[in-house]
Amino acid sequence: MPELRKDPIVGRWVIISTERAKRPFDFAPEDETSKGGFCPFDPGNEKTTPPEIVAYRAPGTLPNTPGWTMRVVANKFPALVIEGNLYKIGEGLYDKMNGIGAHEVIIETPDHEETLSTMPVERFADVLRAYRDRIMDLSRDPRFRYILVFKNQGRSAGASLEHSHSQLIALPVIPEIALEELNGSKKYYGYKDRCVYCDIVRQEQEAKVRVVLENQDFLVCCPFAPRSPFEVWIIPKSHNAVYTELEETRFLSLAQIFSQTLNRLDKALNYRPYNFMLHTSPIRESHQDYYHWHFEIVPKLTRIAGFEWGSGFYINPSPPEEAAKFLREVVLEEEK
Amino acid sequence: MPELRKDPIVGRWVIISTERAKRPFDFAPEDETSKGGFCPFDPGNEKTTPPEIVAYRAPGTLPNTPGWTMRVVANKFPALVIEGNLYKIGEGLYDKMNGIGAHEVIIETPDHEETLSTMPVERFADVLRAYRDRIMDLSRDPRFRYILVFKNQGRSAGASLEHSHSQLIALPVIPEIALEELNGSKKYYGYKDRCVYCDIVRQEQEAKVRVVLENQDFLVCCPFAPRSPFEVWIIPKSHNAVYTELEETRFLSLAQIFSQTLNRLDKALNYRPYNFMLHTSPIRESHQDYYHWHFEIVPKLTRIAGFEWGSGFYINPSPPEEAAKFLREVVLEEEK
Repeated sequence: MPELRKDPIVGRWVIISTERAKRPFDFAPEDETSKGGFCPFDPGNEKTTPPEIVAYRAPGTLPNTPGWTMRVVANKFPALVIEGNLYKIGEGLYDKMNGIGAHEVIIETPDHEETLSTMPVERFADVLRAYRDRIMDLSRDPRFRYILVFKNQGRSAGASLEHSHSQLIALPVIPEIALEELNGSKKYYGYKDRCVYCDIVRQEQEAKVRVVLENQDFLVCCPFAPRSPFEVWIIPKSHNAVYTELEETRFLSLAQIFSQTLNRLDKALNYRPYNFMLHTSPIRESHQDYYHWHFEIVPKLTRIAGFEWGSGFYINPSPPEEAAKFLREVVLEEEK
Repeated sequence: MPELRKDPIVGRWVIISTERAKRPFDFAPEDETSKGGFCPFDPGNEKTTPPEIVAYRAPGTLPNTPGWTMRVVANKFPALVIEGNLYKIGEGLYDKMNGIGAHEVIIETPDHEETLSTMPVERFADVLRAYRDRIMDLSRDPRFRYILVFKNQGRSAGASLEHSHSQLIALPVIPEIALEELNGSKKYYGYKDRCVYCDIVRQEQEAKVRVVLENQDFLVCCPFAPRSPFEVWIIPKSHNAVYTELEETRFLSLAQIFSQTLNRLDKALNYRPYNFMLHTSPIRESHQDYYHWHFEIVPKLTRIAGFEWGSGFYINPSPPEEAAKFLREVVLEEEK
């Protein structure tokens, strides 16, 4: 069983896979070429994945057979495992717990070549609804404290399979980055009596220089202090800490602006790999006033090197004002 | 002039290069092949780098001419610039300051093919002394609060030139990772009245499972909760918060064990790229009792992907106990 271990100095948690431990020669140098060949996420290969947890499929089709447009399955090689009780123990001055959690894969499309950028927005909205539904279901498990939804697009962004998919990991602890955001936005709220994300939305709408796109419900902008060139955030305009409370009628609106954003990034950066992460409130905690859910999209353009490892500082060679301008000025096919 | 910008939520600082701003087409996909050709760090090309700040050179040879064994120069493309007064300003709810700092390059060897692993330990000790000397010199500048020494070895670890070199960046703020370590070790000290690093040294020496190497002065071990497979720390056995206070007689001892460590990593991981960072106390702050300087070495074996970006958690597929065992059992040429 995997182990969660805590760094005794900074308190950072690490997941150690103790079962399929990698030895030195298991770390092959990166290979960016497309692999092709057998794909366990293609229709017809349903039996090669763990059984589906949820699927959107044509009426009359059976689970774990073709006919689906979106499927959620357990990760076959999970970072954390679902069975067992959570126990926490010490080892001298160190702290650890067993690696209880959920690790699921959202197979976004049956089409091996299709991506979130190219699929119809109605189906993109289904993927966003699936995130909500899986978070709500897993939130009932009292062992979990945080559920992280993320996507690795492209091998150098960490995708081990090229078929378009996102992932979800339910964790027994609140991860550092969520804690930092919760603490930071709480501090701001204590000082100003306003949500910092709401203030960001207002200031960005006024300044306009970092705005990429906007619709009735969402603002898409490059953040003021981006870690990566062309980093983009999607922030709902109306205040809410919890993603799962997004009104049913707004999923299509989110899918539309998300699709537009990814298409603009694809075009501007020539389809470079990216990661995106959903930032939402921990389970069973109401941060109604000071926290605000959002998506962060980080293209894979620079490397984490010694300076970043040693400082937690990032060096970003592209001002967000220029990145936003480039993304605004991209002309998409449909607009021509 | 570059800008330092602070994320308004989590307080993370980012350096934005506003001058040589990179546009989308400037981000070429990674190319891992050796480039060869002209090298500004080779002897004879001294005029193509900024003038040397310090050099160890043969008696009678002139500055910025051949005859040196180690040279320190300003970075030709600095992340921060040395001239100017530090000013801090707001932009609505955002905070920023101008990018004042120092960015130096330590050219470790005149030999284009030599690395820290292959050079004689006496010269490695000179490199370690140069870190000390440059930190001491820059510490006199009241604008700086922290000096970070780090090395990127190999292109995928961030090295833009293959000629072996390390870097130093003097910062006008204390970076997040240093703050986290200072706060964490202070908290531990408040609870236990002991330095957490001293306790780690004691526990690791007793448990032995994560120890890679040891000599009279230093312990080399894989940390309990490593972010990366084969991450290795070099910790001085006697307590000191400040690297620059290392006794002159111990630099050779540090170079010996550091060289051994890098050679073992090279052999075990087939010369994969790595980063190392010196963690030491901020300038003009005495953390004598609770902080403890050390080096952290992080091989480049896994990728930072959506999960790490979104959580600050790391997934590590190699338990440190197994990594330490592999590194202990490596047989180096000299030992055969």
